[in-house]
Amino acid sequence: MIANTPIRAERIASDIAALAEITEPGRPYTRRAFTPKFLEGRAWLEQAMRGAGAVTQIDVAGNLIGTIPGRHPELGTIMLGSHSDTVPDGGRFDGIAGVIAALEVARALRDQGVVLDHTLEVADFLAEEVSIFGVSCIGSRGITGTRPAEWLARQSDGVTLEGAIGAVGGNAQRLGQRDDIKAFLELHIEQGPVLQEQKLDVGVVTAIAGITRIEIIVEGRADHAGTTPMGSRKDALSTAAWIALGVEELGKALASGTAHFAATVGEFEMTPNAANVVPARVRMLIDARAELREDMERFIDELDKGVVAIAEKTGVTVSVPRLVSDNPPTPCDPDLLDILDQACESAGARHRRMASGAGHDTAWMARITKAAMIFVPCVDGRSHAPDEFATTDDIALGAAVLLDTVRALDAKLQEEN
Amino acid sequence: MIANTPIRAERIASDIAALAEITEPGRPYTRRAFTPKFLEGRAWLEQAMRGAGAVTQIDVAGNLIGTIPGRHPELGTIMLGSHSDTVPDGGRFDGIAGVIAALEVARALRDQGVVLDHTLEVADFLAEEVSIFGVSCIGSRGITGTRPAEWLARQSDGVTLEGAIGAVGGNAQRLGQRDDIKAFLELHIEQGPVLQEQKLDVGVVTAIAGITRIEIIVEGRADHAGTTPMGSRKDALSTAAWIALGVEELGKALASGTAHFAATVGEFEMTPNAANVVPARVRMLIDARAELREDMERFIDELDKGVVAIAEKTGVTVSVPRLVSDNPPTPCDPDLLDILDQACESAGARHRRMASGAGHDTAWMARITKAAMIFVPCVDGRSHAPDEFATTDDIALGAAVLLDTVRALDAKLQEEN
Repeated sequence: MIANTPIRAERIASDIAALAEITEPGRPYTRRAFTPKFLEGRAWLEQAMRGAGAVTQIDVAGNLIGTIPGRHPELGTIMLGSHSDTVPDGGRFDGIAGVIAALEVARALRDQGVVLDHTLEVADFLAEEVSIFGVSCIGSRGITGTRPAEWLARQSDGVTLEGAIGAVGGNAQRLGQRDDIKAFLELHIEQGPVLQEQKLDVGVVTAIAGITRIEIIVEGRADHAGTTPMGSRKDALSTAAWIALGVEELGKALASGTAHFAATVGEFEMTPNAANVVPARVRMLIDARAELREDMERFIDELDKGVVAIAEKTGVTVSVPRLVSDNPPTPCDPDLLDILDQACESAGARHRRMASGAGHDTAWMARITKAAMIFVPCVDGRSHAPDEFATTDDIALGAAVLLDTVRALDAKLQEEN
Repeated sequence: MIANTPIRAERIASDIAALAEITEPGRPYTRRAFTPKFLEGRAWLEQAMRGAGAVTQIDVAGNLIGTIPGRHPELGTIMLGSHSDTVPDGGRFDGIAGVIAALEVARALRDQGVVLDHTLEVADFLAEEVSIFGVSCIGSRGITGTRPAEWLARQSDGVTLEGAIGAVGGNAQRLGQRDDIKAFLELHIEQGPVLQEQKLDVGVVTAIAGITRIEIIVEGRADHAGTTPMGSRKDALSTAAWIALGVEELGKALASGTAHFAATVGEFEMTPNAANVVPARVRMLIDARAELREDMERFIDELDKGVVAIAEKTGVTVSVPRLVSDNPPTPCDPDLLDILDQACESAGARHRRMASGAGHDTAWMARITKAAMIFVPCVDGRSHAPDEFATTDDIALGAAVLLDTVRALDAKLQEEN
């Protein structure tokens, strides 16, 4: 437990438990964006925001926003937030911990009778997770004017994304044009094992890693597995196996520096996948994450060369690796990082700087304002699963860091003006 | 073209073309056992057998048999045959070439006015390919008393295999008890590239390779692909990749001798198979074929050891390789091989001895009689596909070898009595 803070851990525990109850029956914890359960969760959240003294609204992008006007609203807004939607069979903390921590910061300020000079907003971004429309961060892209126009025609069960944004209370015909947000902060579970392994309380996130997805197709030949001599084959699987091992080796080499790097062959589909047929084709999808763009460029370059070398060695055709998507890393704001470090010290939180390997709403908010985020530990790095877990004390300590940071920012942002 | 033979290539071509017409609409060449198209093909075949002077029947095992009584039926029967069923989207020659070659031998004898001392039978075995009931060689197992009793309860679309055998005219309550068959011969396309590559006309099959299927499960851990450091993972894919490469290496080593050996990872399924999740599990099914049982035993032994070594190296759990099925090789009859070699010489066929990597009805017939088979070349080793192809001349030359062999056997088998 943390001493000398108005953050109340029991309120955080109670809120997270209340949202956990709102799940698809028999599928804990499932509250996918746009579904009735999601709207039920939001209705609960809206009441909770009002209980904290906030005025609530759904913005044009479909985000639920709780606003606590500042003494000097003309100074602009400090926004805190994350998302309340989950993946199917997801957890109780991914996104939710950040929304509830933001709410608790608002409540703690109110308990102390503090009204900030800046306006404070608590945001529940729409559809951070890959939604039923197959895309993610719909709300944070919307509010930052970065939601691709062609997304609106995407369909799910006969409904367009445009219609679905309207149905949650947004207006897809408009994009966010917010210029009043002076800083954005997000608390999130780490979704990795580092803080737990290093017995730390808070990770101060230096950057949201860039995510690049690369597709490789190996084209062998479907021969009879019994009759085709070993030397006369074009086995797509063994060529794909060399590539998978090469991706891992290259990933480990790039991860050996101080900056975050990871590479994973997440999708691997073999055809015809029949017991007595030599594998004819393998499709691989590589997920690579880099804190530094130069690491990603080196990965792409080495992968291209490596694949050519493997194809030459095995005699099996391999497609040129195709960039399916390629998003650069997003550095967090250096000033905010310093303030967060100081707030960790004040709150007695053991902390380190680290990159986020996962994508977050913060990456989009950084397009329009100073943005940063903190991680709190989660058990065994588990997330996107029912056993995802973070302790109330860890979340409360993170919220205390956010609270300190908000108060510091409320003063510091004025000096900058 | 072959000189001095009563085998008529144009009849073979015409028959194969006629059967090719009998296919599921829009899916050349699909005539799966038990389906209406299969029965249509059989009705056509039955007429063709009668045209060759045979008495036709469906035996208890569901095989279509055309019988041409010998001068001395008490000497027993020489049987020739193969199968007329196909895999889905299969070819025009696999099985069919052997049935039509057998039929052409009967016609050629008749054209010459030759009646054998032995009875001659032309067989179209029921369901040699993996059927809608998930099992193969139903007819040749039935006639040789080796069809497992429990197969009869297998269902497809609400029909039992027992009912289906009855529906084609067999009697599943009985198993074959034939003791009159003195020799069995089958012609088949090679389904491999060796004869084409070596510019040979006929392969005299020394043995039907044993087929062993081995399942391996790799159990890693589903971590977040973005946030889990490269060194903290249990990636099932990279461990499975090492195993797949090990299987190939071991297969090549065992295939480097004179006896046939092949090993293939034909099935490879990864879960969860999601772009941003470290692979948690891979299921692999290995298909291994050996002419010599000792090669198979060495393979199984080395695989067991290799898997343990890989699991130790990667730290990912690998199940003990599980034998899903394990059938020993079936040597062909040495006397028949000598007669076939001589017949090749007589017919002017360039020939070699070779093992069959694929399973065939011959392997089951060898349980009850002297049995052997010959291969004819097929283009690029392709089979089980619409582009499977063998030339009429090659099939006709093979039929001429069969004809010579049948005549030689008709004399030789009597000497042995």
